[in-house]
Amino acid sequence: MINCYAFAAVPPFAQGLVRDLRVRWACEEAGLPYRVTLIGDGNGGISRDAYGKIQPFSQVPAIEDGDLTLFESGAIVLHVAEQSPKLLPADPADRAQVIQWMFAALNSIEPRIQELAGIDLFYTDERWAKERRPGAVQAVQQRLAQVAPQLEGRDYLVGSFSAADILMTTVLRILRHTKLVDEQPVIAAYQKRCESRPGFQAALAGQMEPFERGAARQATA
Amino acid sequence: MINCYAFAAVPPFAQGLVRDLRVRWACEEAGLPYRVTLIGDGNGGISRDAYGKIQPFSQVPAIEDGDLTLFESGAIVLHVAEQSPKLLPADPADRAQVIQWMFAALNSIEPRIQELAGIDLFYTDERWAKERRPGAVQAVQQRLAQVAPQLEGRDYLVGSFSAADILMTTVLRILRHTKLVDEQPVIAAYQKRCESRPGFQAALAGQMEPFERGAARQATA
Repeated sequence: MINCYAFAAVPPFAQGLVRDLRVRWACEEAGLPYRVTLIGDGNGGISRDAYGKIQPFSQVPAIEDGDLTLFESGAIVLHVAEQSPKLLPADPADRAQVIQWMFAALNSIEPRIQELAGIDLFYTDERWAKERRPGAVQAVQQRLAQVAPQLEGRDYLVGSFSAADILMTTVLRILRHTKLVDEQPVIAAYQKRCESRPGFQAALAGQMEPFERGAARQATA
Repeated sequence: MINCYAFAAVPPFAQGLVRDLRVRWACEEAGLPYRVTLIGDGNGGISRDAYGKIQPFSQVPAIEDGDLTLFESGAIVLHVAEQSPKLLPADPADRAQVIQWMFAALNSIEPRIQELAGIDLFYTDERWAKERRPGAVQAVQQRLAQVAPQLEGRDYLVGSFSAADILMTTVLRILRHTKLVDEQPVIAAYQKRCESRPGFQAALAGQMEPFERGAARQATA
């Protein structure tokens, strides 16, 4: 059974965005059983130091699947997708297109969105961040305007729901503190469509559960 | 035969870095024949407008392989690699590790390097760029320091040379205007090892050829 690592606690701005969400969602859609090991949890989890030996960048996620240890959300989602035609079609051309959009989400779109999120979440008070922000917003808007026509008249990026939609949706979610997705109604509808899937809801609830447990514990302390 | 799109002309700072290099290199290593269609070349190439209909972000590369049109350098390199055990090992665990490092190069390392390159190449004179630069340098240094131990005592990222090394090397090359790779001798030696391969040399010569032809034409005009 896949063992996925996730954080026991993260600040509110990251809750619902941490990238183990991608792995959980893929497993849910594929119907693959998985368990979660929490990092930084005294009860049965592992320490951040121990996790650093598994993931060289100390980032989440990483998984163990039998003897295999794997990191990078894109690689893990592809690893899971290869076990389910629900996420990766058997037809070679469709399969290649799904992989194309997986890389597009992570290499052509996420970097621009991540730059803006960094400015807004980590560097708000820095003068450079204020001056760079309009350009960073424009860079995101350009990409969203380029993606929108690709989704026009279709429910998902390639045929039916696939691993590409898992990555694209979770990349778009990083913009939740802005109105940028709403500026492109086709993309907003797409994101809503993907997020309304039971597999996404289960994955999100799974990630949030320890955070909510932690908050409840603090409230009663 | 694979048809790879590449630019007929780019500014000097981009020459030898444009991402069709990744596709050419993969084809060279795999021993797959390929041809190149130049964008913005009056003689037998296609216009930038026509290319925009093939690649939604107007970025290079894109390929045609039979009926399949594919963009995103990561997806194309994986598509080529799946046709050659020289680039993607058959053993499932090794294969997964190669794909892991492909995503790591493009999603965990390239965004930080690209941010620094943007500052240095596009925004040099902006006040925000000067103020952001030390942080951007630090972010790159952190990643390089995390990658170096992974290469300690080994020639390539996963066993023998693979598609992961094509992406990692071409990502590291984006730092050529800095001394950051030299700060990590293990990575510098790795990059040199990969770039000394005949497949890389042929790929680089292929990308540079129209640029040099254009420069010679200008010099004699």
